[in-house]
Amino acid sequence: MINKSFLTAVLLLIALPFMAQPKKTFTLDDLLSGGSNFWNLQPKNLHTTWWGDVLVELDVDECRQISDAKGRSVYPKFLFTLDELNAAAGLDDKNKVRSLYYASFPDGERKEVFVRTSRENLIYDWGEKKVVWRQPRVAGATHADLSLASRCEAYVRDWNLYVMTADGAELAVTTDGSRELVYGQSVHRDEFGIRKGTFWSPKGNLLAFYRMDQSMVTDYPQVDISDRPARYAPDKYPMAGMTSHKVTVGIFNPATKQTVYLKAGDPTDRYFTNIAWSPDERTVYMIELPRSQDKAELVAYDAATGDRKGVLYTETNPKYVHPQHPIVFLPWDDTKFIYQSERDGYNHLYLFDTTGKELRQLTQGEFVVLDLVGFNTKKKALIVSTTEASPIQANLYAVSVANGKRTPLDGGTGCHTPSLSASGAFVRDLWSSPDVVRKIDLTATATGKSVNLLTAADPWAGYDVPEITGGTIKAADGTTDLYYRLVKPTNFDPNKKYPTVVYVYGGPGIRNVEATRNFMARGWEIYMAQRGYVVFVVDNRGSSRRGFAFESATFRHLGDVEMQDQLKGVEFLKTLPYVDADRLGVHGWSFGGFMTTNLMCSYPDVFKVGVAGGPVIDWKYYEVMYGERYMDTPQENPEGYASTSLLGKAKNLKGRLQVIIGYNDPTCVPQHSLAFLRACEDAGTQPDFFVYPGQGHNMYGKDMIHLHERITRYFDDYLK
Amino acid sequence: MINKSFLTAVLLLIALPFMAQPKKTFTLDDLLSGGSNFWNLQPKNLHTTWWGDVLVELDVDECRQISDAKGRSVYPKFLFTLDELNAAAGLDDKNKVRSLYYASFPDGERKEVFVRTSRENLIYDWGEKKVVWRQPRVAGATHADLSLASRCEAYVRDWNLYVMTADGAELAVTTDGSRELVYGQSVHRDEFGIRKGTFWSPKGNLLAFYRMDQSMVTDYPQVDISDRPARYAPDKYPMAGMTSHKVTVGIFNPATKQTVYLKAGDPTDRYFTNIAWSPDERTVYMIELPRSQDKAELVAYDAATGDRKGVLYTETNPKYVHPQHPIVFLPWDDTKFIYQSERDGYNHLYLFDTTGKELRQLTQGEFVVLDLVGFNTKKKALIVSTTEASPIQANLYAVSVANGKRTPLDGGTGCHTPSLSASGAFVRDLWSSPDVVRKIDLTATATGKSVNLLTAADPWAGYDVPEITGGTIKAADGTTDLYYRLVKPTNFDPNKKYPTVVYVYGGPGIRNVEATRNFMARGWEIYMAQRGYVVFVVDNRGSSRRGFAFESATFRHLGDVEMQDQLKGVEFLKTLPYVDADRLGVHGWSFGGFMTTNLMCSYPDVFKVGVAGGPVIDWKYYEVMYGERYMDTPQENPEGYASTSLLGKAKNLKGRLQVIIGYNDPTCVPQHSLAFLRACEDAGTQPDFFVYPGQGHNMYGKDMIHLHERITRYFDDYLK
Repeated sequence: MINKSFLTAVLLLIALPFMAQPKKTFTLDDLLSGGSNFWNLQPKNLHTTWWGDVLVELDVDECRQISDAKGRSVYPKFLFTLDELNAAAGLDDKNKVRSLYYASFPDGERKEVFVRTSRENLIYDWGEKKVVWRQPRVAGATHADLSLASRCEAYVRDWNLYVMTADGAELAVTTDGSRELVYGQSVHRDEFGIRKGTFWSPKGNLLAFYRMDQSMVTDYPQVDISDRPARYAPDKYPMAGMTSHKVTVGIFNPATKQTVYLKAGDPTDRYFTNIAWSPDERTVYMIELPRSQDKAELVAYDAATGDRKGVLYTETNPKYVHPQHPIVFLPWDDTKFIYQSERDGYNHLYLFDTTGKELRQLTQGEFVVLDLVGFNTKKKALIVSTTEASPIQANLYAVSVANGKRTPLDGGTGCHTPSLSASGAFVRDLWSSPDVVRKIDLTATATGKSVNLLTAADPWAGYDVPEITGGTIKAADGTTDLYYRLVKPTNFDPNKKYPTVVYVYGGPGIRNVEATRNFMARGWEIYMAQRGYVVFVVDNRGSSRRGFAFESATFRHLGDVEMQDQLKGVEFLKTLPYVDADRLGVHGWSFGGFMTTNLMCSYPDVFKVGVAGGPVIDWKYYEVMYGERYMDTPQENPEGYASTSLLGKAKNLKGRLQVIIGYNDPTCVPQHSLAFLRACEDAGTQPDFFVYPGQGHNMYGKDMIHLHERITRYFDDYLK
Repeated sequence: MINKSFLTAVLLLIALPFMAQPKKTFTLDDLLSGGSNFWNLQPKNLHTTWWGDVLVELDVDECRQISDAKGRSVYPKFLFTLDELNAAAGLDDKNKVRSLYYASFPDGERKEVFVRTSRENLIYDWGEKKVVWRQPRVAGATHADLSLASRCEAYVRDWNLYVMTADGAELAVTTDGSRELVYGQSVHRDEFGIRKGTFWSPKGNLLAFYRMDQSMVTDYPQVDISDRPARYAPDKYPMAGMTSHKVTVGIFNPATKQTVYLKAGDPTDRYFTNIAWSPDERTVYMIELPRSQDKAELVAYDAATGDRKGVLYTETNPKYVHPQHPIVFLPWDDTKFIYQSERDGYNHLYLFDTTGKELRQLTQGEFVVLDLVGFNTKKKALIVSTTEASPIQANLYAVSVANGKRTPLDGGTGCHTPSLSASGAFVRDLWSSPDVVRKIDLTATATGKSVNLLTAADPWAGYDVPEITGGTIKAADGTTDLYYRLVKPTNFDPNKKYPTVVYVYGGPGIRNVEATRNFMARGWEIYMAQRGYVVFVVDNRGSSRRGFAFESATFRHLGDVEMQDQLKGVEFLKTLPYVDADRLGVHGWSFGGFMTTNLMCSYPDVFKVGVAGGPVIDWKYYEVMYGERYMDTPQENPEGYASTSLLGKAKNLKGRLQVIIGYNDPTCVPQHSLAFLRACEDAGTQPDFFVYPGQGHNMYGKDMIHLHERITRYFDDYLK
C-alpha cells in the first residue's frame, strides 16, 4: 500500500516549480517611510540637478552628465568622483564630503561644483581638479542660507544672526537675540508660505531678514522627560484671540556692516509675508496683512533706507486672503513681475509693472495654478503647473507672456514634479499616475517634446497588492464633485462583508487623493487591505486645490461641512455590498484627528472605532495665524468656537476612540487632547489615549512603525 | 387546547409572591467611596467624642450624652442643638455652624463645646446658653492648628506662619516665606510620621514649627491644563541621590513675639522628625536622622534658648531605622517617657527617664505594637493596640507600667479602632471582623468589661454578595506565612474556570488583608466578583505590621522578593480548580502599579492582562526620603537601581498592560510612566496608557468611578 502522504509530498515537490509563487506580504517596515525596508521597495529614481541647461546625475560617489545643452542624451558621461574631490580638497575622514547627492552647479559655463561639509563650503573645479573656493562654517550654526552669487552665508547661532563673508570673515548682524527676540528664522508660525527667515538679494549684496519679538506671547509649558528630573521647555505659543508676536524686517549690508529696518509702522497684529527683491537689489517687496487677514497689500520699500515707497496692489476678501507666493520678476524685464491671487476664485497669475499697474491676467479658468515653476527666457514663456486637466492632477504648461498661449508639456495625465534648467529650455519632469509607477522625462519647454530618462519598474511586483481605485461622489451640497480613493482587501471576496476604515484629513491646504501612483494610497492602507479591511478616503470641501469657494465653505465653523461630506462618503460605502456598515472605523491625524474625534462624537451611531492623532479639540487652543484665518478670533466668533469645540461633544462618545499625541507636540499642543480627556472623564465617557514622549506633531522613524502597529491593533481589537 | 404561555404567565403571577426576591446587583456607585450611593450602603455608625470621661454622640443638629462618668449608659440624654448654638452666637446663614459632627469638648468639668466656622472659632456654654469665647479666623488661612489650652491658633497664609492670639490679635511669626522657604507645613515629604508643621506646647504657650528651605531642590515641571494656555506649575521634588531640602525648627513665643531656632547644626542631608514637648514646656525633643537613615538620635533642646541639651538615646541599624512616633510622657510622672522602637525586630514600647536612662521594655514578643492609644492615669497603665492575637488583627490591651501585666480589652478577634476618654478610664471601641460588620463597645480599661453601644446590621443584605475567605500560604522563603483574601465570583459554579485578577500593593507601610469586615475586601473586588472574576490578594514580604525582618527583606532591591511571594500566590491559585491559569490578570496602584508593571514585564507568560496605576518605574525618579530608606542612593546602590528599573524590562512586555496616572501626580511624578512608554516605544512593545488631567496620585470623587469602569473594561476586553 502506497503511503499517501509520501505521494503527496512527491507530487508537491514536482508541482512546486510550475505553480505560481505565493505572493509576498508587506510588513509595516516595507510600507512606511520610517520602516527599515521602505526605501528598498520604492520605485527606482534618478537623482539629478541642473548644470546650466545640462542635466547631471548625482550619485553618492560620482556625478555623470545625462544630457547636453541641446537636450540630447549623452548618458552616462562621467564628470568627477567624490574621492577626487575629497583628495583635491585635502579632506580627511572626519571632515570629508560624504555624498554627492546634494552637490550643485552654480555656473553653467564653468566646471564647478558646490558642496559642503559641516565645517566648510567648497567649490571644486573638476577640469582643473582643484578647489577654487572654500569658506569656513561655524559649529552650532543653524538656518544656513548661502548666496552662491556673493558667496556670503547667513546663519543663526545662539539666537543671533551672522553672515560669513566669501573670504571667511564672520559678521554679527544682531547681538540681542534670545528666545524672546528671534532673528533670521521663519516667523508667523510658518503660515503665509513662510519657510525661512533670511532672503539674499539677487546678487547677494544685501540680506533681508526677519526679526520676531515674542516677549509678549504666552508660553505653552512643554516638558522634556529625557533629563532627570524632567525639564521645563516652554514654547512661545500665541493662542487664538490672545496677544501675538511682533515681526519686523531688517536689511543687512555686509559691505557696510549696517542694518536698516523697513519702516513698515507699528507691527502689532500685522503679518509681513512673501519677501521679494527687485532684480537691481534696490527695492524689497512684502505682502502685508492685518491680523484679520481680510486684506493683502503688496508694499515696496527702499532697501537702502528702509523707507516705505508705497502700496502697489491691494486685495480684500470678506472671508480671508491667503497669499503664499512672493512676487517674481520677469527675467527679461526688470519692470514687470508676476503676482499670484485667488481673487477670481482660483489661484492665477497676474502681470504687474513696478508702478503697481496691473497689465493683464496671464492664466484664467476654473482650475488652480499650483506652481510658477519658472520661465523659458528665450521664448518669454512661463512654465506652470496646474489642475486644468483634472482637479486631482498636476500638469505642466508653457504660457506665452505675450499672448497667453499655452503649450502642454506633458501627456495630460498624472501629477508632474518639474525641475527647470537654467534658461528654462528644459524641464526634468518626474511624474506618476494611478497606472504609472514613476517616469522621468526630459522635455523641451519650447515644443513639449520629451525623451524618457527613466521608467521605473513596479517595486511591488511579487507582492500581494490590493486593488486601488479612484472616483467621485457628490458633496453634501448635491453638486460638487468630491474625489475618493477606495482600497479593497487583498484576496477580495465580493460575497463577504468587510470592516471598513475611513482615513481622513479634511482640513485646508492638504488633499489626500491625487492622480499619482495608486491614487496616492498611503502605505498603511495597503497594510490594512492585507489584513482584510476596506479603506476609503475622500477629500471633502475645505481641502486644497479646488479653489476658494470649495476651501472656504468651512469658514467660521471648521468641521461641520467637512463632516457632512464625509457622511456622503459613508452613504457611498453603504451602497457597496462588501462594506459592513456595522463595522465602520475612522482614522486621521492633526486636522484629521479633529475630524476623527468630531465624527466619533457627532455621529456616534455611524462609526464604531476611531483613532485620532494629534487632534485639534477646540480651536481656542490653536494658534493665531492658521486658526483665526479660518475661524476669526474667539471674541469675533464665539458661537463658531463653541459649536465646533469637541469639549462639549465629549459626552456623546459611544464607540472606541483612541487619541494619540506626541507628548511634546508644539503645533497642536497637548492641552487639546488633555482637555478632551478631562471633558470625557467629567461626562463619564471612555476614550483611550496614548503618547509618544519626545515626539512632536508627527511620528518619525521607528516610532512611525510603532504608531501604526498601535493603530492597526486598535482596529483589530474592536472593529474586526 | 390550553395556551401554554398563558398558563405559564398565570403560574408566574401566582408564584412570584412566594419566591425569594432576586438579589440586587451592586454598581460602582454603590461600592466605591467616590460613588453617589456608597454612603447609603455603609454600616450604621455612631459619631462620638469624649467630654471628659463622658461619651457624647455628635449629630448634624444636636449632641446627646451616651454615658456618664462611670461608664453607665444614659443614652440618649439631650445636651444642646445646633440651632440654639447658632442663635446664641448670633450667626447668620452665611457664617453659621453647619454641623456638630466636628464639635469637641475641651473641659470635662464645663458645659462647653468648641466649634468653628470659616470665620470664627467659638466656645459655647450650653448650660448658660451663651458664647463664652470667640476668635476671628483669617480668610485664606490654611494649616490651622489651635491650642485649646491657650486658645492661640497657628496658621499659614501666603507661605508665612501666623498666630492668632486668644483675644484676636494676629502675630506674624515669619515674613520671608515663599514657595522656596516654607513655614509651618509638613516637611520631609510626610515621611517619618510627619503630618503637620506646627506643634503647640502642652499649655499652648510656645509654638514649635518647621521651616523648610527648598531653594536648592530641583523643580519637577507640572502643567495645569485648566487655564488657557496651560500653566506651568512646578513642584519642588528632590529625586533620589539629588540635592535635598534643609529643615530647621523654630520656637515662637506669642507673649514675647520672639522666635528662637533650635541649634541643631548644619541641616544639610538631615531629617528632624517626631517633635515632642516636655510637660513643663521647657524642653523640645526631636528624633534626628542622617540622610543615610541608618541612625536615629533622640535629642533634647532648651525651648527658651534653642540650645542643644544632648542626645538621650541612639539607635542604629545597618539597613534603616524608621521612627514614626514622638516620645510620650507618662501623665503621672514628668520625668519619664515612652519611646517606640523596632530594635528587637518588632515595634515595642520602652520606658526612659529624661536623663536618657532606659528603665525597661514595656512590651515585648513577636508581635507589633500598632498604637500607643493613651493611658489609664489612675491605674498607671498604657492602653495599646497590637497584633499579638494575630498578625492581621488589631486588639486592645491595658499594660501596667509597673509590672507589664496585660489586660485584654476586647474579645481577641477583629480589628479595633479605639478612642480613649480623658482619664483613660474608658475606651470607645469601634471594631469589625470578617464576620462582624461593625460594633461599637464602651469598655472600662481597668477591667476590660464592656457594654455594646451599636451592632450594625449588614447594609448589603439583599445584595448578591460574593463569598470572601481568608487564609495563609507560605512565602517564597518556604517558612513565612503570608495572609491572603480570596473573593469568589457570585453565582459560583465549582465546575467552571474563571478569569482571575490579583490585586496587589506590596510596598512598605501598607497591608491589604486584615481581619476586618470581609477581610478588608475593596468595593471593586465585589464588583469584579459580580462580573465573574476570582479576585485574590496576598500581602507579600515587604508589607507592613509583620516586623522589621519581614518588611526589610526587600532592602536595596524593591520588587524582587515581593514578586517571588506574589508568584507563590499564583501557585496557590493554580491549585484551585475553578481558577483559569490562562486568564490571570493583575492590578495595583502606586507601589502596586510598580508591582503590576514589574510582574507583567518580569513574568510575561504568567499574567495576560495588567492595569498599573501611578506606578514607580525607576526608583531614581522617586523622592529622597522614602526611596533612599529602602534603596539607598543611586550612587550607593547602582546595581539595585538598575536591576529593579522597569525601563530595562519594558522590552519583555507581552500581555496587555494599561498604565494609568493622574496627570498632575506630585508623588509618583508622570516622568515614571512617560519614561516607561518611551522605553516600550523604543523596544517595540505596546503598553496602553491613560491620564486624569488635574488629578494627583489617586483619583477621587467621580473620577474614581470613571477609573474603575475603565479598569474593569480593560479586563473585560482582554481577560474575559
